Amino acid sequence: MRYIACIVAYDGTEYAGFQRQKNGRSVQGELERALEVVLKHPAPIVMAGRTDRGVHATGQCCRFATTNRIPVDRVHLALNRVLDQAVRVLSAREVDESFHPRFSARSRVYRYTIDNGAIINPLTRRVAGHVLHKLDVTAMREAIPVFLGRHDFKAWQSAGSPAGSTLRTVKKLTVQRRRSQFGSALIEVEIEADAFLYQMVRNIVGALIKVGEGRLTAGGVRRLMEGLDRTQCPEPAPPQGLSLVQVKY
Amino acid sequence: MRYIACIVAYDGTEYAGFQRQKNGRSVQGELERALEVVLKHPAPIVMAGRTDRGVHATGQCCRFATTNRIPVDRVHLALNRVLDQAVRVLSAREVDESFHPRFSARSRVYRYTIDNGAIINPLTRRVAGHVLHKLDVTAMREAIPVFLGRHDFKAWQSAGSPAGSTLRTVKKLTVQRRRSQFGSALIEVEIEADAFLYQMVRNIVGALIKVGEGRLTAGGVRRLMEGLDRTQCPEPAPPQGLSLVQVKY
Repeated sequence: MRYIACIVAYDGTEYAGFQRQKNGRSVQGELERALEVVLKHPAPIVMAGRTDRGVHATGQCCRFATTNRIPVDRVHLALNRVLDQAVRVLSAREVDESFHPRFSARSRVYRYTIDNGAIINPLTRRVAGHVLHKLDVTAMREAIPVFLGRHDFKAWQSAGSPAGSTLRTVKKLTVQRRRSQFGSALIEVEIEADAFLYQMVRNIVGALIKVGEGRLTAGGVRRLMEGLDRTQCPEPAPPQGLSLVQVKY
Repeated sequence: MRYIACIVAYDGTEYAGFQRQKNGRSVQGELERALEVVLKHPAPIVMAGRTDRGVHATGQCCRFATTNRIPVDRVHLALNRVLDQAVRVLSAREVDESFHPRFSARSRVYRYTIDNGAIINPLTRRVAGHVLHKLDVTAMREAIPVFLGRHDFKAWQSAGSPAGSTLRTVKKLTVQRRRSQFGSALIEVEIEADAFLYQMVRNIVGALIKVGEGRLTAGGVRRLMEGLDRTQCPEPAPPQGLSLVQVKY
């Protein structure tokens, strides 16, 4: 048996999330459909992280097992010929049986893109969450130290999560202005952690947006963190701004 | 009667072009539907330039006449409440009856975005034309002088154009590398002219791509220009990379 890991990019707009499910198309379902065509046998995949409906990826990692002898450097080409254009396999490499996209990962990097223009830009509306209120990036940056390091992130985990430790380590958090090629005034929030709780990035970005709007202070964010109570926190930022950009091993 | 000019942005992916037509949704049809809701009377629009199926705009200009007394600074807000999210009115101003979006324009600026990555990036596939062959931007720039200035652009006009002069003045043409927020290696071609012939930008970009691929030289482009024969020229670049970014008055 061979084990192959792929780096996958997808436009989450057209999928009901990454994970295969009863209702609606999933990225996993689309990948497994293509794998069965290429490999001539069903090949269930294991992925680094689930992404919700509308969330994108440019660096998702998934692994499958196969008895097919396809050369590893042909895998991405063969799959891309079969896959919907909204999903692309960027690369593939042979891995040990012990390699697990989720459990072997040292950290994940997500990026959240905010369209901060007065009017939603139609050309970035699928890849950015719109915030009408002009955000104060300097104020947003003042809240960064609250999140950095090892903490109980229970306040930033949405309901519906599996039970388990809510301790996580945020290794990096940046907030930067950027101009898109379509003239949008974008703000990019990039966050790296050992692992993320359910909707943790969108919940943190939701709080940073409130700080940028002047409706919450860095001190207020710290109290929310210490309070460990999701119901006291701002709502999550909308899904379409979020992308899984890298999984580090 | 009042005359109001609007700056309009749209994602052309979901429309069968700008101009109202029998089959398929058009941007014009969507704008006129919204205008009738807001103004309580039909209001046919005149626009600066037609865009083909799949072509976008961030700075289209259109004008309508109305007897409605809506304050001009409320027009874009009222229309955006009614319009599909793929179309946004960015601003509106009152103009003289003599102002015509097409005939009053001094020049138009278009931008063509090439995704030059080895694999199509799913997150920019609606707003960039993909070219697999790694393009030589320096070579592409050598062909710029061929197009600058006043010339007979007959070779760069697609079939199906109305009869008329094919003399046009290209005022500016630039080719630049750019990295998208999703990691795509983009190349942007920006072109400004007094006016454009049918598919002139996509035809010029099609030739520049051939130059970037090393399959055509700047001298070859000059001979194509002088030959005035469309059938000798490379095919047009695909529509989804093209945006009308500004109309200057």
